[in-house]
Order: sequence, then C-alpha cells, then structure tokens
Amino acid sequence: MVEEYKELSPSEFFYRNRELAGFTSPSRSLYTAIRELFENSMDACELYGIKPDILIILREVKKVSNETSIYRLYIRDNGSGIPEEHILGALGKMLYSSKYVLRQSRGTFGLGGTMALLYGQITTNQPIKVTSATIKSKKIYQYVFKIDIRSNKAEVKEFKRYRNRNKWHGTIIDFMLEGNYSRIKSRIIEYFKYTAAISPYAEITFIDPDGRLFLFRRTSSKMPKPPKETKPHPHGIDFETLKKMLIDADPKMTIKEFLKTSFHRVGDRIASNFLSYAKLNPNLTIEDLLSDKSGKLVEKLYRSLQNYDRFLSPSADVLSPIGADILKEGIIKEFHPQYVDVVVRPSSSYKGHPFIVEAAIAYGGGIPGSAGEIVLFRYANKIPLLYDEANDVARKVLNNINWSSYRRPYDGPTAFFIHICSTKVPFKSVGKEFIADIPEVEREIELAVKELLRGLTRYTRKIQRRMEAQKRVELFRKYLPQIAKFSTGLAGKRKVPNVEYLIEKIEDRYGIKSTK
Amino acid sequence: MVEEYKELSPSEFFYRNRELAGFTSPSRSLYTAIRELFENSMDACELYGIKPDILIILREVKKVSNETSIYRLYIRDNGSGIPEEHILGALGKMLYSSKYVLRQSRGTFGLGGTMALLYGQITTNQPIKVTSATIKSKKIYQYVFKIDIRSNKAEVKEFKRYRNRNKWHGTIIDFMLEGNYSRIKSRIIEYFKYTAAISPYAEITFIDPDGRLFLFRRTSSKMPKPPKETKPHPHGIDFETLKKMLIDADPKMTIKEFLKTSFHRVGDRIASNFLSYAKLNPNLTIEDLLSDKSGKLVEKLYRSLQNYDRFLSPSADVLSPIGADILKEGIIKEFHPQYVDVVVRPSSSYKGHPFIVEAAIAYGGGIPGSAGEIVLFRYANKIPLLYDEANDVARKVLNNINWSSYRRPYDGPTAFFIHICSTKVPFKSVGKEFIADIPEVEREIELAVKELLRGLTRYTRKIQRRMEAQKRVELFRKYLPQIAKFSTGLAGKRKVPNVEYLIEKIEDRYGIKSTK
Repeated sequence: MVEEYKELSPSEFFYRNRELAGFTSPSRSLYTAIRELFENSMDACELYGIKPDILIILREVKKVSNETSIYRLYIRDNGSGIPEEHILGALGKMLYSSKYVLRQSRGTFGLGGTMALLYGQITTNQPIKVTSATIKSKKIYQYVFKIDIRSNKAEVKEFKRYRNRNKWHGTIIDFMLEGNYSRIKSRIIEYFKYTAAISPYAEITFIDPDGRLFLFRRTSSKMPKPPKETKPHPHGIDFETLKKMLIDADPKMTIKEFLKTSFHRVGDRIASNFLSYAKLNPNLTIEDLLSDKSGKLVEKLYRSLQNYDRFLSPSADVLSPIGADILKEGIIKEFHPQYVDVVVRPSSSYKGHPFIVEAAIAYGGGIPGSAGEIVLFRYANKIPLLYDEANDVARKVLNNINWSSYRRPYDGPTAFFIHICSTKVPFKSVGKEFIADIPEVEREIELAVKELLRGLTRYTRKIQRRMEAQKRVELFRKYLPQIAKFSTGLAGKRKVPNVEYLIEKIEDRYGIKSTK
Repeated sequence: MVEEYKELSPSEFFYRNRELAGFTSPSRSLYTAIRELFENSMDACELYGIKPDILIILREVKKVSNETSIYRLYIRDNGSGIPEEHILGALGKMLYSSKYVLRQSRGTFGLGGTMALLYGQITTNQPIKVTSATIKSKKIYQYVFKIDIRSNKAEVKEFKRYRNRNKWHGTIIDFMLEGNYSRIKSRIIEYFKYTAAISPYAEITFIDPDGRLFLFRRTSSKMPKPPKETKPHPHGIDFETLKKMLIDADPKMTIKEFLKTSFHRVGDRIASNFLSYAKLNPNLTIEDLLSDKSGKLVEKLYRSLQNYDRFLSPSADVLSPIGADILKEGIIKEFHPQYVDVVVRPSSSYKGHPFIVEAAIAYGGGIPGSAGEIVLFRYANKIPLLYDEANDVARKVLNNINWSSYRRPYDGPTAFFIHICSTKVPFKSVGKEFIADIPEVEREIELAVKELLRGLTRYTRKIQRRMEAQKRVELFRKYLPQIAKFSTGLAGKRKVPNVEYLIEKIEDRYGIKSTK
C-alpha cells in the first residue's frame, strides 16, 4: 500500500469540512447561510454607525427531492459596502477578510460569508451575484462569479459598473442554494426576533418562501457606539506574535519605544517599570534583540510580558456593548414582559482580551416557555446563539445556581438574556454556537445572574406581600364592619362607628389600592 | 475609517484560531497535543496491519509561571513511517496530509499533528525534531525544523541521514510545548486507558512528568483488519465533486464507463438501469457532457445520481470495526467487569458513507461511577471522546431511553461503550469531541443500546430470580426439617424422614447451588 499525500487549498479544506462551519443538513445549511450573510450586513452597518436597514428575501425556485429545494436568497443592506478591489477577495476567496483585526465584530473567522456562497455553488452549480458601493462611491459595482475551489479564487463571469445616482451604499448578495425551509422556518424567524430584541435600532424585513412578511421595526434611534480596533495587550500575545511584531518594527527603535507603540495601555511609566522588572536595558534596540542568535533575549522579553502582573487591564472602551437602555427597550419591544431588569457588569478581561457581560431577566408577557421554566437567550458579540446550549458556559452557570436561595414567580417562565461582547469571544467551534467556559467569563455571568435574581426576588416578595396584604384588607373589609356593629351592640350604643378610615389606613400602610 | 482586508495562510488561520482544534488552556492543549500525535501513531501502525508499540515520554523541562511549565514530549511508534519527501509537508505544513482520501482513520482533518507541533513552537519558540523510516527503508531520516507561519512551510534547521541497520520503521517526534500536566493528568491517563480498552492488540507505554510508568500491555494477538480506501458513492458526492471527477476523467470515455470506474458499487447493470432512469444516452462521452455550455446535462446527471434510489448501499468492507471479540477482550482487560455483552450492528450508511455501530454494556468490577449511574464511553474511528458529552448523539440516545422498560442492577454503575466507525465520522468540530445527530447514526445506536439493555434485563432477572430462589431454599432448609419433625410427632411416628432430597430437588429446579 502506498499512502497518498495531498495538499488542499483553504477552499478545498472548508468545502470538504463544511459541517464545521454549520453547513450540515439542507435545513441547517439554509439557516447558517442566511445568518452568516445577515451578520455581515449588520457588521457593515454598525461598524460605521449606520442604522441597519436590511432586507432578506428567500424564494423557492424548484423542488429537487422530497427533502430539498433550490432557493434564491437575496440580502440587501445599507452598510458601508465593500471597496471594489476587495469584492472578489472578501466573498470569493477563503481566508481573505476584513475581520482579521483585533476588534469586536459578529464575524470572527472571516469565513462565513464565503462559505455560504460556496455552499450555494456546490449544491446548485449557479454563479453568485454581488452588487456593492461604498459610502460616497460614484459607482456601483456588480460582479457575477463562481469560486474556483482548487485555486481558492473567484472566477468572474460578468462585471458591470453603474452610475451611483442616489448615493446608495451597501451590499446586495443574490445567489442560489439548496435547503429545506419548512424544517427550519421557526428557527430562522426566532433568529431574527432574537436579533431584533437586542437591536431595536435596526429595521429588519424578511420575506419568506411562503410569501409571508416579517417586519421587525426600528423603535429606537439610539445606537451603541461602534467598536474600535485595538492593539494587543501584553497578556494576549504569544511567542510567534511577539516575534512577528519585532520583525515588523523599526530595527533602530528601542525596546521601550517598541513597548509603548505596540501594546495596548503601555505608557512611559509602565514600560519603565516593566523593563526593570524584566531586567532588560531600556536602550536595547529591536536589532539588538533580534541579533541575539540564542533567542534568549526575546524569550526573556516574552516570559516577562506574560508574568508581569502590573500591566493595566485591557480597556473596554474599544468594545461596543448593547447598553442597558437599548437592551431593555429591545426586550420590551419584542416580548412585552411584565417585569424586566438589566445588569451591565463592569468590563473584565481574559488572556488580554477585554470583555463585558450584559444580562437581563424578564418575566411575563410574551416570554415563551412553560410555567416555572428557566429560559435562556444567549448572545455573543450581538449574535443570538440558538444551538448547542447544553455545552454553553451561560447554561452551566444557570445549572449551578442554588435556586432555593431566590424567589421567582412560578406561574410563567423566567427568561435570562446573556450577552458577552469581546475583541475575541471564546467560541468552541467555527459554527459559533457556544462559548467555552473560561473562568473569568463564567464568573462575570454568575455575578450578573445573581444580581438579577436578587432583584427578581425583591420583586417577587413585593408582589407576594402585596397579594397577602390584599387578602388581609379584604378580610378586614369583610369583618371589621360586623365587629364594629357587634361591639356597638355590646356597648349598648346605637351608632355604629365608621370603620372605613381604619381600612384605608391599613391600605395605606401596605401601599395598596382597595379592590372595593 | 478604512477597513483593512487581509489574506491569511492556512497556518496563520489555524494558529490564530487554535481553540477550534482543541488548543485552549495550557492543560487542555497538552492533552490535545499528546492525543493528536498518539492517534497519528496508531493510524500509522494499523493501516499497515502492524501491532502498535507506542512509547510516550513527557518530561517537565522548567516552570514558567504558577500555571504553566515547558514540557518535552517524545512519541515513538513502530508504524509505517513517513516517506522522506513528505516528512516536512506532513508535519510542517497545514492542509498537507495523507488523510485526504476516502478511508476510515483516526485523523480526518489532517491538521492535528501539525497543530500540536505549531502549538509547541508558538509557546516555546523551540524547533521540532522528527525521525522517521518507512518499511524496508535503508536510511533513517532526521529533520530539525520550525514552521514558518506566514508562508505555511517548514524551515529546516538540521538534516541527518543514518544507516538503518536494524530495519527499524516508524516515526519519532520530539519537541517542546507549554502545558499544565497536573491539571490534566487524570484525563490523559483515562485517555490511554480507554484507548487500551478497545485495542488490546496495542502495547502503550506512557512515562509521565512525575516519573510514573503506565503500561497498557498487549493481551491479544488478533488485530482488526486494516481499513481500505474507497471510491465515492453516488449519494455521497456533490456538484463540485462530480464536476471535478468529470474534468479529471478521460474525455473520450462514455458516461457509462465513467459511472462504472468512478463510483463505489456501480457495475454494468446498475449503470444501465440508472442511465435509463436518468434519460441519458449511455454512449454520451465525457466530452459531450462538458461541452454542453448550458450545464444542463451535468446538472441532470447530478440530480439523477442524487435521486436514484436503486444504487447498492455503500459496502462496509472498507471499514475497520473493532470486532466483538477484541472489544470484549479489551473491556475485560481494562475493567474486569462482572457482566459484559457486545452488539455489532449490521453496517448502514448516511449520505453515501458506510458506517458501523459497535456497542458494549458492562457492569460490576472496575467500571467507574456511582451506584445506579449510566456511564458512557464514546468512541469514533477508535478514538475515545472525552469532552462535550452533553452534545453527543450517543448521550442523546441514552437520555431518550425509557429506563422503566428495562431492568439493571442498582448496586453499581452500568457502562455503555459506543463505537462508530465510518469513512466519514460526522464530527461537529475540528477538536473531534462529539458527533452530530445524523438520524441514521442515531437509529443504529438506539437499536444497539436497546438490544444490550434487553440482554442486561434478562441477566438482571436471572440474578434476581436466583437470589429469590436462594432465599426460598434457605427458608425451606430452615423450616422443612422442623415441619418434618413436627409432622412425625403428629403422626405418632418416631423416625423423622430425610427432607434433604426435597431441598436438593428444589435447588435443582432453580438451578442453584446450596449455600449449606
């Protein structure tokens, strides 16, 4: 037997292993494709502070078997558009993306959009049409192309340029893919609803293959501030990154300058303190470091960067959390709960990446679920996560809560909304469905959940006290007049005293309104 | 703001996203590295029918922080070795592998080994040493290299060639990596133990950083037959694959010849029947198909291949299941259970990939777990899966079992061993920790589990009946002599009759031995 060794292009690799990115069954693939392209659209708006206005149309073109049909998927956004020279790269080539920087965004792997298009091409053999114009672009560009899997490149079939008369900007993607809508319908609609619940500043229109229109209206003019790109934190880098940074730096630069210019939150004082901790001469140049063939100096620098514990924590200024008001408004808009409360935790960090946990609790109204159920809505960098909840860190936290320490209403479900945003969300898979249990993240979620539960406990107690007081007042209302009458008789008097003011006093005390 | 578009090399992509392949915390990364290289070694033996003899030595070199140390990992196998011209590709380049063929093997993504070495280099900045000789090679080759991440290539530091005097074959990998052994110790040992439990034909020696020796002895000379490479099944291909196959084929070949030579289990009769079903002329040549610019002919061929339901199921001959005897022997060797039973399901298939489910149930002896617990040992292509059980299809099946329909002993845990082997295991992540719930796979696991549970129910009933009978016999033994004595007195007789033969008769009836 002779073993055959082969090299794959990135397109070939992901094409062969598309399950890894969520392209499994025809129904799930359809869901993933819509989601990936929609998330790109949301990013393309929010990154530039544009209020998203996104139209998604899914039409059935023809049935190809009992289980599958070919669909045409059309997604239009009013985002920043893709610069002409990057259109074919960003959408027709694997591992080519604008997401490969240190910045919070829905996309992290820079794969999803291209994977969706590739999946469409694989299953239907049809080309892909992309139309895009950047902000203030004088032209609108339109490409029709296929992805050449072996060379990992787009193969252009048609190219057009239009005058951009109306100063339009955004991206339109229009292509065919195989799927099974009826099986995944409810998930897709849930996905949009859950997205709308944390982004009331977006207008999302979805027209489905049954011709139904789902409109998630914009109800808020407030938007979260856009995320910013950031430099790496000394605790977030590894050997290779450090070496790459050193090689890319000006060789004449001193190590101190290098630290100040290359890292997040390293100023003059911290650089000096660090270098004396590391026992490195601040006047050493990058050249000196790199010319040490033993590698000992770079290693010393690296180990010291890892171990020095007096760097400032990464700043959360670069993040784009939803914010308490917007989160509350979104939940009210989509679920009309009876009770809702939001907690935004102070920023924290893991491995040099800042992150913020935002959490909400809601009860009553349109919150789905059965009586007494704990429902969990998970979000990461503003993406709703709908699959594989059992492995997620937030579910783990809820499972470990000692529920007997808290009170909650049992006549309906209680919902938690947990959002984590970070320059790097610790997803466990390319499919971005669940978050690894990093201890720092777990701790913040736990603190948020406990705070929300204390609030709910107070609310539940108040409600219960009020209900008990109500009962008591009703008892008084029933018996006090009789007692008064009886006592009057007993005292040999005629005129029964007015007890109404007593009852009102009691009502006042419990702060309730009489049901009289 | 200007967005920056970047292209990543495959090395850069996986290096940035190494969590996806299981390289998360220092402890987990150490586990993953050992596991990936060890699995390559097992594959390199079994594929060639060689009984594995694998030595793993892990030594702590120095502590670098409270949480992490640098370790030296040495893995030696007696496998087939890597041909000299492929050593640097297979281990120093991402997406270069011998696993990219249709054949059952532990490795599927062709990433793990290189990822382990890359992780070592990233965390320690040390080069990697690989020594290898193929079967009958006159030389042993040794490379010391680093991986250049940006160009996705190995950078050779040293190269040596030795005379292969002792006709050695195999591969030795020797490199440094960061980790935390004490935190992951028990998982690593479990991993080897669980591997040994399904491969009693392998000898595995592990020397850990505490200097302890774990020896999993070979107790069986029987080995499963090696897996074979196979051709794709018509139901397992997609548009792109079909097009690629057509382009690679001889253009003068007829479509019928093409079907017969390119697909798994398509012979003359099936090809003819299929072509008449598809309404395609059997004498059309590949050239004819490809020269149809509308693409309609290829599309017709593709759709028909997908929908024709009279192709033979993929044959499981190419698979390498463990086999009932070896599985039983391995479980007995590692766990010494009181009861063990094995079921091998007939082969089945999903999306054109053949698969076999093998399952065992064991109770008592050294089976770990608490009384009454259902313990699950999951295996896929002979790899033990230790993480993310909650999301796995086998756990799902066990969760859905109606336990009240079966009996099992409650004085100890009951263990299930579930193995699925396939030319393509539907893993949900590159980290290969859990299997997606493909309905066909779920069904086979369910049938196996139910059959095992029926067996266990019979066994438990028998045990319970025997225990009850035992009690009854003891009652007879206690009272029958007294009754006999009393009756003798009542009858006015003196000689008490011998009742022993009655008791023996009862014992015979229940098939038990007296405890007298």
